[in-house]
Amino acid sequence: MGKGITKRSEDYSAWYNELVKKADLAENSPVRGCMVIKPHGFAVWERMQAVLDKMFKETGHYNAYFPIFIPKSYFSREASHVEGFAKECAVVTHYRLKNDPDGEGVVVDPDAKLEEELIVRPTSETVIWDTYKNWIQSYRDLPILLNQWANVVRWEMRTRLFLRTAEFLWQEGHTAHATRKEAEEEAVQMMNVYADFVENFMAVPVLKGVKSESERFAGAVDTYCIEALMQDGKALQAGTSHFLGQNFAKAFDVKFADQTGKLEYVWGTSWGVSTRLMGALIMAHSDDEGLVLPPKLAPTQVVIVPIFKNEEELAQISEVANKIVKNLRAKDISVKFDNRDTHKPGWKFAEYEQKGVPVRIAIGPRDLENNQVEVARRDTKVKQTYDLDGLAQVINDLLGAIQNDMYEKALQFREDNTTEVNSYDEFKEVIENKGGFVYAHWDGTAETEEQIKNETKATIRLIPLEKGEEGVCMVTGKSSKGRVVFARAY
Amino acid sequence: MGKGITKRSEDYSAWYNELVKKADLAENSPVRGCMVIKPHGFAVWERMQAVLDKMFKETGHYNAYFPIFIPKSYFSREASHVEGFAKECAVVTHYRLKNDPDGEGVVVDPDAKLEEELIVRPTSETVIWDTYKNWIQSYRDLPILLNQWANVVRWEMRTRLFLRTAEFLWQEGHTAHATRKEAEEEAVQMMNVYADFVENFMAVPVLKGVKSESERFAGAVDTYCIEALMQDGKALQAGTSHFLGQNFAKAFDVKFADQTGKLEYVWGTSWGVSTRLMGALIMAHSDDEGLVLPPKLAPTQVVIVPIFKNEEELAQISEVANKIVKNLRAKDISVKFDNRDTHKPGWKFAEYEQKGVPVRIAIGPRDLENNQVEVARRDTKVKQTYDLDGLAQVINDLLGAIQNDMYEKALQFREDNTTEVNSYDEFKEVIENKGGFVYAHWDGTAETEEQIKNETKATIRLIPLEKGEEGVCMVTGKSSKGRVVFARAY
Repeated sequence: MGKGITKRSEDYSAWYNELVKKADLAENSPVRGCMVIKPHGFAVWERMQAVLDKMFKETGHYNAYFPIFIPKSYFSREASHVEGFAKECAVVTHYRLKNDPDGEGVVVDPDAKLEEELIVRPTSETVIWDTYKNWIQSYRDLPILLNQWANVVRWEMRTRLFLRTAEFLWQEGHTAHATRKEAEEEAVQMMNVYADFVENFMAVPVLKGVKSESERFAGAVDTYCIEALMQDGKALQAGTSHFLGQNFAKAFDVKFADQTGKLEYVWGTSWGVSTRLMGALIMAHSDDEGLVLPPKLAPTQVVIVPIFKNEEELAQISEVANKIVKNLRAKDISVKFDNRDTHKPGWKFAEYEQKGVPVRIAIGPRDLENNQVEVARRDTKVKQTYDLDGLAQVINDLLGAIQNDMYEKALQFREDNTTEVNSYDEFKEVIENKGGFVYAHWDGTAETEEQIKNETKATIRLIPLEKGEEGVCMVTGKSSKGRVVFARAY
Repeated sequence: MGKGITKRSEDYSAWYNELVKKADLAENSPVRGCMVIKPHGFAVWERMQAVLDKMFKETGHYNAYFPIFIPKSYFSREASHVEGFAKECAVVTHYRLKNDPDGEGVVVDPDAKLEEELIVRPTSETVIWDTYKNWIQSYRDLPILLNQWANVVRWEMRTRLFLRTAEFLWQEGHTAHATRKEAEEEAVQMMNVYADFVENFMAVPVLKGVKSESERFAGAVDTYCIEALMQDGKALQAGTSHFLGQNFAKAFDVKFADQTGKLEYVWGTSWGVSTRLMGALIMAHSDDEGLVLPPKLAPTQVVIVPIFKNEEELAQISEVANKIVKNLRAKDISVKFDNRDTHKPGWKFAEYEQKGVPVRIAIGPRDLENNQVEVARRDTKVKQTYDLDGLAQVINDLLGAIQNDMYEKALQFREDNTTEVNSYDEFKEVIENKGGFVYAHWDGTAETEEQIKNETKATIRLIPLEKGEEGVCMVTGKSSKGRVVFARAY
């Protein structure tokens, strides 16, 4: 395993970067800003995908696949979308290389220039609405409830593994509806699906709300979002769901005949979560020893480490270990028996701690004599001895308890780091020294929002959906319709 | 549903194109050569993915993810690879657009030119071996057994949905080994995994073998492959598995210390199947009415269509239908009860025929009186009446029988269309008039292979792995080590 990682208290950012690499989750690739997702990291992402995909299907969505390339002109069709997305992107201009006449390598063939440049999709609203135009004629063709799992590219200048990379993996849902009401309900439903996933599988509590105009998706009427709090007191946007109104339908001329035969523009939504969730998962739970994974998303939930001096001892332990493996698998618990003789138990302990395996079972010769094993929780590091009899049920319950405790711990942390303030001075003090979510009154203008951002680096993370008590803006003293949530954010 | 599709006997190519669209599998996108995979097509592909992914994991592989972009210079590192892959590809030259100073749209920002162009991956050996260099120091780091599910781009000039598209979806396995023997065994194992999948899930028999030098993957020492026969007598390469020798290890300087501490180059394999399998699936089984799907890959295995005149009749039928649904789902059979009153039964029959649902159950008022239903097989169109009692088991057995019969029918077709020839005249006659697989003696030279290809459009699909009887080349009369398999191919 080599040496440990920087402590969170010393340098949170270094801690994160080192942990991602040490836990074998991801690494930087030779291509600027693009990452290699390593097997352990990808296994966690696969579990996220599987759960989310099931949730999407249970809410009536189907998967499909749209092209990675989008003609440049498509971005100009929706006025605000082009500002938000068509700028920092990967542009394909040619379709052929040729041998370098002056050297050994290959060069771009100038004769193979595309008539219109292609953009590697940063998001797919444009190409999908262009396609929907051909699929939708009548109200009978609605709703369309599609999702795609795909890679997208946004040419970020400052990148960090999982949190902000030029290429990332995500899902993007794109739905089309006959009524405004149905589309709005869909957008809210998907925000709730995301919240359900992040809270109940990632064990991370989230706030739900709607973005201010300046933080809204480029092309949306409303952007619903979920926001989570990281251990350093910064917020992380974990998922967004956009009510697009008729914006893309108008941009791509997508109309349907309603039941009276009248032509109307279609209403739309789009919603997405990405490999950024991996960053949230890591930063919400992990500690100075490494990754801490909630059992529901851990690729390996239990590891069994034998403690032995010779082959005979290993053989005796293996017999018991294999029975435990069998009993755990019968309960759908994923378990690994690490019987390698090339590494010492202490090395293995450190490795599985770093990789975040929720439960470790250690078995030595004395345990066999006493018909027991030592069980260690990764989240609290508490060790306890249990009888072999009924062990599978004990472990099963323990995994449930860990999942629950991790959520409760994160919730407590969020509560401890949520502050209501009534003056701008207090606001600045909290943002600077305590961090976390800060509830404050704001006058609803982009100017005040911008001023606060410039002066404190805090942004409006969301406007709560439920109506709050009225008040006066902490900055301008103008009237406020309710407190909004501020934080410094990733 | 609109009108039917062109008959296979009239125009096989038009039949295929129309079927893909009518069965809602895929369509062309606005971007040249790229396809939109529609929900029904994607649902079939998802089933393929799920089965293959399980097979890969059962043979010890893990999933990971590598970047979509590859620096241009990487392609020049492996001499033959650059010839095979670095030519027709999508080249990213810029990373920013800006508002057109002379107009309304956006233009490429000339100030945002990349120092080195990036290629959208046509295949990932180069970037993966460049990464492996950092992962491999000692024999203890081997083997590495990775797979990725990804999109790739090859700038094909003539494209056809699923069979040949500029962007396609695939999986690519990339493994690294300490010994030549282990790598060769891996390559053969994955060819066998592919054959298992195509035969037992797609119900398409395949021939297994190795490619001739001219048909080999650019950078491989040996390319193992599986070849299937389509209904028009043309062959389709359904999957390839490459023994790479030490070629990529040498190109990217990937060495390991063996148990004695000696540095050696690593041995490699790569293997892949793609959405092209969708084309094979369609062309192997489907008929003039539409798609025919093997039950193991059908998203919906059974559809129940009620035949009713009024709401009362529908209510009575629904009661029975819902029981059938429940009993079938208890046996893990995917079933849909189409109780829409917006379409007539005949319209529904045609729709599900076109989409390839393996079994259709029709229930009318008289069936209820007789405690029976009418069951129609999609593959043979045979209808039969069955008692409601024990129906779930009957359907379960029927799905098994359909899976098996589809394979046997395709196998019989292949046998009927496999010919052994002893002269070049006979060869030309068979290739031109009968088609199918032709076993013939060949002298082993690229010149003769090229001549045959130019004169007959037939290529060597594979060289069988088992040693055949010796003979003389049908073209040159020189000695031949055994018959090889020729065909015209997709």
